[in-house]
Amino acid sequence: MKEKITVIKVGGAIVESPIALEDLIRDFSSVEGKKLLVHGGGRSATAMASRLGIETQMVDGRRITDEGMLCVVTMVYGGLVNKDIVARMQGLGVNALGMTGADMNIILSHKRPAGEVDYGWVGDVDRVDGQALKSLVDSGAVPVIAPLTHDGKGHLLNTNADTMAGETAKGLAPLYDVTLVYCFEKPGVLADPDDDNSVISLITPEIYEKLKADGTVSGGMIPKLDNAFAALQAGVKKVVITHATAIADPEAGTTIRL
Amino acid sequence: MKEKITVIKVGGAIVESPIALEDLIRDFSSVEGKKLLVHGGGRSATAMASRLGIETQMVDGRRITDEGMLCVVTMVYGGLVNKDIVARMQGLGVNALGMTGADMNIILSHKRPAGEVDYGWVGDVDRVDGQALKSLVDSGAVPVIAPLTHDGKGHLLNTNADTMAGETAKGLAPLYDVTLVYCFEKPGVLADPDDDNSVISLITPEIYEKLKADGTVSGGMIPKLDNAFAALQAGVKKVVITHATAIADPEAGTTIRL
Repeated sequence: MKEKITVIKVGGAIVESPIALEDLIRDFSSVEGKKLLVHGGGRSATAMASRLGIETQMVDGRRITDEGMLCVVTMVYGGLVNKDIVARMQGLGVNALGMTGADMNIILSHKRPAGEVDYGWVGDVDRVDGQALKSLVDSGAVPVIAPLTHDGKGHLLNTNADTMAGETAKGLAPLYDVTLVYCFEKPGVLADPDDDNSVISLITPEIYEKLKADGTVSGGMIPKLDNAFAALQAGVKKVVITHATAIADPEAGTTIRL
Repeated sequence: MKEKITVIKVGGAIVESPIALEDLIRDFSSVEGKKLLVHGGGRSATAMASRLGIETQMVDGRRITDEGMLCVVTMVYGGLVNKDIVARMQGLGVNALGMTGADMNIILSHKRPAGEVDYGWVGDVDRVDGQALKSLVDSGAVPVIAPLTHDGKGHLLNTNADTMAGETAKGLAPLYDVTLVYCFEKPGVLADPDDDNSVISLITPEIYEKLKADGTVSGGMIPKLDNAFAALQAGVKKVVITHATAIADPEAGTTIRL
C-alpha cells in the first residue's frame, strides 16, 4: 500500500490575484498528507516584460521565449511568484521549498526544436526524477514548483505548468498513490457550461466517450481530459478538476478515473 | 570526527560578470567534498530597478528596501541570478538546489526596526536551521543560497550575503567541520595593498593584533576580519579570504584561525 500524495496545479490567474492567492495558500495548507504545488504565472510575466519594454509574442497560447523573455520568466516565475508563495506558506507553517526543474535536476527537458514556429527557450519534458522529489517530500519538504525546467547543459527552459504537473504526477506514480488536482476557475467539468451547479462528479473512459459523443464536453476541455486520462494510464490514481477554492474538499469537483 | 563542509560566499561583482561567473561555477564544481554557495547580486538589482523606474537608495552600503525594491531583489537574487547559477551547475554535474532563507525555513530573520534609518524590508538573521541544511546536503544536494530570508510571518526580507554566509557557517558548525571562504577581488589579505604578491597566509588572534597595531590591516578589512573571528569563536574551523579564481586551491589566500 503506497502512501498518498496530492499534486496540485494552480494557474496564473490565481497567483496574480493577491486575494485569490492568499485563499489558495490557506486552502493548500489544509490539504491533508503529503503534497506538492506546481504554479503558473503567465500574465505576470507579460506585465513585467511590458514594463521592461520586451514585447510578448504568443502562438497558440504558448509564449515565444527569446533570451530576454527567458530572463523575465526566470525572474517572475522562479523568483517573484515562487518565493512569495514559499514565504507565505512558511507563515502558515507549511514547510515549502521553492524549486524549478533545474533544482536537484528534478525535471529535465529538451529545447523544443524550431518547426513552423520557433518557440525559443521552451522545454518539452523528458523525465521527472520522482525519487529525488520523494526524498525531499519524505524529509518534510513541500515542493513548490515554478514552470521552468532545464536542458542539463546549463540552460533554463520555459515550460508549460499543466504539462509539468502532469509529468510530475506520472513521475511520482511508481512511488506514491497520486492524486493530481487541476485548479480551475469553474467548479469542475460542467454538464451545462452556463450552470455552475451542473458539475459532473465522475468521468470514466466510458462516460467520457458518451460526453464527447453527445457534445457535453467539447473545445478546450478535450485536451485537458485527454491529458488527465494519459496521466491515469501512466499510473496516477485519480485526477480532479476543481475550483481553486475547493482543493481541500475531497468531495468537490470532477473526479476522473480509469 | 565531523565531516568537512565548505561554505563559499561569492559577491555581486562576480555573479554579474558572465565570464567571472562561468569561471567561478567551474572552480566551485571542482571543490572537493560537501559544499554550499551563498551568493550576492547587489548591482544587478540596482540595474533592474533602474530599468523599472525604481530608485535605488543606499545608506552605508546597505540598500533601502521598500515594497517595490523587495520585488526587484526577489526577482533578481531569488530568480534570475540564483536559477542561472543552478542551471549552469547542473550542466557541470553539480546537484545544485537554489534556495532562499524562506525555503524549508532554513534562515529566519526579523525585520530590522526603523532607527535613524528605516531600511524597510531588510532582515537581521535570528537563526539558521543547520539540521535542515544537513539533511539536504547529506541527500546529495548542493545548496545555492540567495541573499533573502523571511520573517516566519509570510514576508521575505532582503539580507546581507556576507552575514548570511557567516551565520550559515555558524549554524553548520555543530554538525560539520566548517571552512568558510569569502571570495574577493584580491588574492587575500595583503601586507602591501599595492602588491598582490604580499598575501598574508595566516592570521591568528595574536597576528591580527599586531597587524592592526602596525597599521597593516585597516579600513574595510577590519569588519571583515572581526566577522571572521566571530565565526571562529562560534565553532567554524577556519575562514579563508581568497580570490574568486582560487576557491578550489586549499593553499591560496589568507587563512584565519584561532
